[in-house]
Amino acid sequence: MCSRMDNKSYLVQMNGNGKSLVKAQSLNATAVNVKGLHGNGLHHVSVNGSLYPAKPKSRRQRWEVKASEMAKNTLNPIRAIVDGMKLTPNPDKPMIALSIGDPTVFGNLPTDGAVLQALKDAIDSEKYNGYAPSVGYLKSRQAVANFCSCPQAPLEAEDVILTSGCSQAIELAINVLCNPGDNILVPCPGFSLYKTLAVSMGIEVKLYNLLPEKSWEIDLQQMESLIDERTSCVIVTNPSNPCGSVFSKEHLQKILQVASKHCVPILADEIYSDMVFPGCSSPSLASLSSDVPIISCGGLAKRWLVPGWRMGWILIHDRNDIFGSEIRQGLVKLSQRILGACTIIQGALESILNNTPQSFYSNTIDFLKSNSEICFNELSTVPGLNPVMPSGAMYLMVGIDIYHFPDFNNDVDFTERLVTEQSVFCLPASAFEYPNFFRIVVTVPEHLMTEACARIREFCQRYYRPRSRDSTDSHDLDQ
Amino acid sequence: MCSRMDNKSYLVQMNGNGKSLVKAQSLNATAVNVKGLHGNGLHHVSVNGSLYPAKPKSRRQRWEVKASEMAKNTLNPIRAIVDGMKLTPNPDKPMIALSIGDPTVFGNLPTDGAVLQALKDAIDSEKYNGYAPSVGYLKSRQAVANFCSCPQAPLEAEDVILTSGCSQAIELAINVLCNPGDNILVPCPGFSLYKTLAVSMGIEVKLYNLLPEKSWEIDLQQMESLIDERTSCVIVTNPSNPCGSVFSKEHLQKILQVASKHCVPILADEIYSDMVFPGCSSPSLASLSSDVPIISCGGLAKRWLVPGWRMGWILIHDRNDIFGSEIRQGLVKLSQRILGACTIIQGALESILNNTPQSFYSNTIDFLKSNSEICFNELSTVPGLNPVMPSGAMYLMVGIDIYHFPDFNNDVDFTERLVTEQSVFCLPASAFEYPNFFRIVVTVPEHLMTEACARIREFCQRYYRPRSRDSTDSHDLDQ
Repeated sequence: MCSRMDNKSYLVQMNGNGKSLVKAQSLNATAVNVKGLHGNGLHHVSVNGSLYPAKPKSRRQRWEVKASEMAKNTLNPIRAIVDGMKLTPNPDKPMIALSIGDPTVFGNLPTDGAVLQALKDAIDSEKYNGYAPSVGYLKSRQAVANFCSCPQAPLEAEDVILTSGCSQAIELAINVLCNPGDNILVPCPGFSLYKTLAVSMGIEVKLYNLLPEKSWEIDLQQMESLIDERTSCVIVTNPSNPCGSVFSKEHLQKILQVASKHCVPILADEIYSDMVFPGCSSPSLASLSSDVPIISCGGLAKRWLVPGWRMGWILIHDRNDIFGSEIRQGLVKLSQRILGACTIIQGALESILNNTPQSFYSNTIDFLKSNSEICFNELSTVPGLNPVMPSGAMYLMVGIDIYHFPDFNNDVDFTERLVTEQSVFCLPASAFEYPNFFRIVVTVPEHLMTEACARIREFCQRYYRPRSRDSTDSHDLDQ
Repeated sequence: MCSRMDNKSYLVQMNGNGKSLVKAQSLNATAVNVKGLHGNGLHHVSVNGSLYPAKPKSRRQRWEVKASEMAKNTLNPIRAIVDGMKLTPNPDKPMIALSIGDPTVFGNLPTDGAVLQALKDAIDSEKYNGYAPSVGYLKSRQAVANFCSCPQAPLEAEDVILTSGCSQAIELAINVLCNPGDNILVPCPGFSLYKTLAVSMGIEVKLYNLLPEKSWEIDLQQMESLIDERTSCVIVTNPSNPCGSVFSKEHLQKILQVASKHCVPILADEIYSDMVFPGCSSPSLASLSSDVPIISCGGLAKRWLVPGWRMGWILIHDRNDIFGSEIRQGLVKLSQRILGACTIIQGALESILNNTPQSFYSNTIDFLKSNSEICFNELSTVPGLNPVMPSGAMYLMVGIDIYHFPDFNNDVDFTERLVTEQSVFCLPASAFEYPNFFRIVVTVPEHLMTEACARIREFCQRYYRPRSRDSTDSHDLDQ
């Protein structure tokens, strides 16, 4: 026995020439760390020139490879719900999918020719094939800074980090702000990625409520009640996925007041920024903030209709230097893990931002507004449905008076049968932790939108049962 | 006081309609989790209909935002070392950077025109602007499977996951195989990303030695001695960065024997696969394995000379079904966190793999071999230097007899002064945990390679001191 090894840490390292370098540290530690002394199966620890036998290592005798906890805990609620549904369309009716948040699937919303040309120019230049800095080319970051700057929230290139899509922007932002055991405040209903990312990192998710009767404004009192000392950020999605709502300037100011009062930074998911119907305005959160530090996430995906290109960005708004260098350097370090966006897209970015004609943006928004109105007007007169008119983005949420549809237990049942009978697929809002609603994507061509609404009407008329609502509450609690 | 709350867990959740749903669980847990009951600052926990005051929450009174532990622990040794160096070139000599593992920086190694055309075709088709599946387009995965298949290691599309560069492939592979507290075996010298990723995830890195005197073969006995029950994978880089070495079939078989004996899967970093000088052969690890499950990581970066495009892939080789569905599903789940590669590149992938002319590959390799020979032959006759001839990839390692250069403490000192005096920058191999070597990237144009070697010779001739080596050992131990 070797009593000299108790309560000490022996660290055996190899130097660059393969010779062993032994350091013995007299610490109150019990770990014995033996690295590469002998390869003969008998291990020794050398301390001050003497060799001591180390405990033989336990090794595996048979194959047993398990997925990591993080992999197991990376749960995508949309997949969990959709994969569990029986989605067998009615063979007599062509399928209309109103479920996918991808504006390109029907081909009716192509990106602008100037955007494609910018990409081809970047290829032809042959300047964008090598590695970019992990945070992106300086020129491209400057272009984003110029494009997203406003007098109230000026940006420099150093405030911008380019990422592989807005998803990576959100991942880096959560990653830099939160430790395991922290919590984040997330909108309900809300984009499922926040929870997918956070839970896999051991971060608790607290849901704050959006109020359909107030055009999906935040229940600020309830949100505030969730904040505690482990709250590392509030995520604000504006315009909203899945609601299509757009917060007023006044409401954004109230959100900032809560964050300011409790000293909680904001992660602003502004991927739908400027996708706002005429008549609405949508200032960025940062343009209204006097003190709250904000990490804003955005990208080309939605406004330029190219989500597959994976061109996202982080904007750091921190005029009072609350983040300091630590958060900025943390983001830079995290960006070095897998590097960021494809250099061809980065190389085209300046031209895309500066040369896309204004008419492209306004045509897209006019179309989305028109389609939203068609959908809202149609479904408003369908018995048992309560659509909420959006003000931006590309979504519309529809409430189901599930009590009046006794054939279905919930939104998942309802939307599943809608596929079976009418070949119309809407995403059940359980995927956004918001049962008894469903989400409609309004990017579908107008004639399909009209057709889909007619089928939804037929479906609801078939299953709607007028009933008194005596037991509604207990029924709701089953969801 | 509320003794009923002891040793119980109270979980208060909101349902989708903003109504509170209270579940009380009689568990041996002390956590009290109150979610969004009241927003008035006074919190209550409702148990079986009765309200109990909850402890007021501690909230922050002032701003204090810190970077997460993961951000702080994401350490890039290359940056840590290079950022600490004074890199001020001699103004009388133009700088020659032999430090950057990017074959595009000098413009002498453009990718093939067919590769660029494939990209432009993908843009013109307008079929690749939307979201791809998180694991990549099926057609593109099939193309990679066909390209990488061999009779001994057949691949189907389902064995392929497309990623944002080989870096993300490596990240996903480590992430799915390892839990915090596990360890991985990593080559020394070796590519620094493995450690950067692993340490930030709480995974221990154990270094196994490559032996310069054996053309950088693995010290298999020492590697084997590192394996214990928490060893979740062995990373094998072949061909090697930073060594440029290529393992023989026999050596690869011995590596597989060790992995098989101890039931440890292999993460094969094969990004330099097929970048092997004429006369050498480089079978993939998977083609030699009868039982060991292997995750092989690769991509377009090096062989097609487009590292900025971020097109990587994972190949799952598991003919004995040891990974089972768990690892495969884990990889799919992890791929959903930020999605993968740019869809334009994915769309071009089939054409790139099938239509790049063979002459492009062989021209690149011939150039790399020729430049390696120039460099090796030149530096072999420089006093105090010990270059090791590579067999592939694009690197060459040079040992420094630091004892004969008393003006310098180590490789970092040596290479720093080489910049100051000769405007030649070689990466000190301390960045690969291998002091007293430096790495030369052999992608530089031939005349610059010749010029750089001449300057290195001049530099060494100036500082070399012939000395007896009596105290070499103790000196070495200082590194």
